[in-house]
Amino acid sequence: MGLRVDIPGERFRVVYHIEGTEAEAREAARAICYEQTVEYPPELVPPGYIESWIVGRIEDVRPADGGFEVVISYAADSVGTELTQLLNVVFGNSSLKPGIRVESLDLGSSIGDAFPGPRFGRDGLRALVGAPARPLLCTALKPMGLSAGTLAKLAYELALGGIDLIKDDHGLSDQPFCPFTQRVGMCAEAVARANAETGGRCLYLPNVTAPAAKVHARAAEARRLGAGGLLIAPGLVGFDAMMSLAADPAIGLPILGHPALLGAFVVDPHHGISHRALLGQVMRLAGADSVIFPSFGGRFSFTQAECRGIVGGSTAPMGHIKPILPAPAGGMRLDRVPELRAFYGDDVVFLIGGDLHQGPSLVDSCRRFRSLVEA
Amino acid sequence: MGLRVDIPGERFRVVYHIEGTEAEAREAARAICYEQTVEYPPELVPPGYIESWIVGRIEDVRPADGGFEVVISYAADSVGTELTQLLNVVFGNSSLKPGIRVESLDLGSSIGDAFPGPRFGRDGLRALVGAPARPLLCTALKPMGLSAGTLAKLAYELALGGIDLIKDDHGLSDQPFCPFTQRVGMCAEAVARANAETGGRCLYLPNVTAPAAKVHARAAEARRLGAGGLLIAPGLVGFDAMMSLAADPAIGLPILGHPALLGAFVVDPHHGISHRALLGQVMRLAGADSVIFPSFGGRFSFTQAECRGIVGGSTAPMGHIKPILPAPAGGMRLDRVPELRAFYGDDVVFLIGGDLHQGPSLVDSCRRFRSLVEA
Repeated sequence: MGLRVDIPGERFRVVYHIEGTEAEAREAARAICYEQTVEYPPELVPPGYIESWIVGRIEDVRPADGGFEVVISYAADSVGTELTQLLNVVFGNSSLKPGIRVESLDLGSSIGDAFPGPRFGRDGLRALVGAPARPLLCTALKPMGLSAGTLAKLAYELALGGIDLIKDDHGLSDQPFCPFTQRVGMCAEAVARANAETGGRCLYLPNVTAPAAKVHARAAEARRLGAGGLLIAPGLVGFDAMMSLAADPAIGLPILGHPALLGAFVVDPHHGISHRALLGQVMRLAGADSVIFPSFGGRFSFTQAECRGIVGGSTAPMGHIKPILPAPAGGMRLDRVPELRAFYGDDVVFLIGGDLHQGPSLVDSCRRFRSLVEA
Repeated sequence: MGLRVDIPGERFRVVYHIEGTEAEAREAARAICYEQTVEYPPELVPPGYIESWIVGRIEDVRPADGGFEVVISYAADSVGTELTQLLNVVFGNSSLKPGIRVESLDLGSSIGDAFPGPRFGRDGLRALVGAPARPLLCTALKPMGLSAGTLAKLAYELALGGIDLIKDDHGLSDQPFCPFTQRVGMCAEAVARANAETGGRCLYLPNVTAPAAKVHARAAEARRLGAGGLLIAPGLVGFDAMMSLAADPAIGLPILGHPALLGAFVVDPHHGISHRALLGQVMRLAGADSVIFPSFGGRFSFTQAECRGIVGGSTAPMGHIKPILPAPAGGMRLDRVPELRAFYGDDVVFLIGGDLHQGPSLVDSCRRFRSLVEA
């Protein structure tokens, strides 16, 4: 090692969980320090700024969950001000090695200040729908294959029944059976009509997950057509594409982040990125005002602890970045709302899809849903 | 089940590997058919077009590797013409379930025609560097933290020594120590100067992995400044962002695809997307002319079989989509070139980074590298 040079600037921290003995974990941690920065033989790294500042630095090693938690700090300089490069430094190449999992991020003020975070956050989203304290109600327009007109009829009934957030199913993009512009225009109009009747403030959130060159244009068109928010899946378009929508005042709509394709990061408990870090912290940093995830007890396999991690990442202090609302989903049912409310509390969006369609009347199912969160 | 309706249009196929007994695999496969399309209770799915055409269809179930390979077909309609939605239908929500791995894609002509694939491919890239038959030589400008001027000096020596493709290290973005425009201008000039001296056709490929709003502008600027190609990490920017560069004739540069962050998909052998499908087929579909991956025997853990899978996905027939060159990397050394050549053959890009810097003369190390592939 060369001299440690005192250089003005800041470092941020990443907590990794690493499998193996302490010696193995320390060796893996040392490899991460180089892999995530210089990618260069340690003995050839130039002394001074690069060796002492740019190379990652092990700050702590402690036993955890049958392996070790290792805290590594990186220079804010290694990132600059770009979210793509932040994710690259956190886990780019090390994602290709087994037995390494990003547990959490501590970005500090230097990196954190570069990112605006969610425009609305928990309180802003509550204000938009006029529900300052109770859980918010969300559902999806589905199934894929219905025409825009049929989806608009559903949207009207759902809004009439008291749903707060009506999102496109995330599988609705711009298919021949239901083109984007037609769908968004008709559904936004249907929700506005229901709001006029009820005096409610239901928002329609079309899916703007789209090719890179079209994401921004679709969001702008959605706004023009009267959408009240946006749905986007950053695993498909990249986290920065979501962030660019959140940061743009000309868009200025709340964003629901969808976890499509991101499961690959979280499912293996020994590898990837934790539920807390990815679906909580990164979703939030990248501008989601609410994050959808498959709750325990539905069609998916997330545990209670993993769901609690997402809630923590969505709400724990993170500099100037606003807290956001977790949106448990994935096969939730009306009869589970009391149980889910006991677990998640009231700072939550309940997303129920298919189960609302089980009864004879969609409007009545929505009213029952609403009464469960107003109880 | 309702009537099966004959509807004009095409279906494409995805092969999944599913863990468990045959009964469990069939049940999981049925769940995938709904999860990836309608996300709706099966008993409520409308008969006709949606039930018979939009819902995924199990085409085959066969034992494989201690579990089952299941072939599921989907309507081309469910995708439309967007790569983001193709990836969503292939694995969006099912990525959130354990024990499911995408093994390979068979897109057929309907979907395949929507995507142009790589602009140059294997033969086009060979033509650009004037090497019709031998392995191509690639290296990276590193370590992160050097100034643009120092990197340009390295680029000059590397080009002088006979390297074909000099890429930015993928950790170089637009940091304060080495801003993008300054780096690209100086390195492109240095490589052009070396080419003028040697009569060679070395290409410089700057990293355009960047925020969504900047990817295209950086690529255009790189072209204007004399870059000969581009490096991009689709795991950070989204696969469609890479494809949009490949498809744009105003950019018109060959693309090296980097696997940063994509390791989360491939590392768990029981979950995610196979090396073949992700780093071979999807990289290629999304326009990479060559795909970088960590080869067996380096700093990473990919096996020979996994590397062979990437080669297969990069080169096996795929409609009109051109074959591309695999670029094994990740701690490769000069002394392993004969062994790697025996394994990969001559249709390959050898990417050696740090090891070129071990000797007293960088130019001499490059010349030795070149002689090893001309032997």
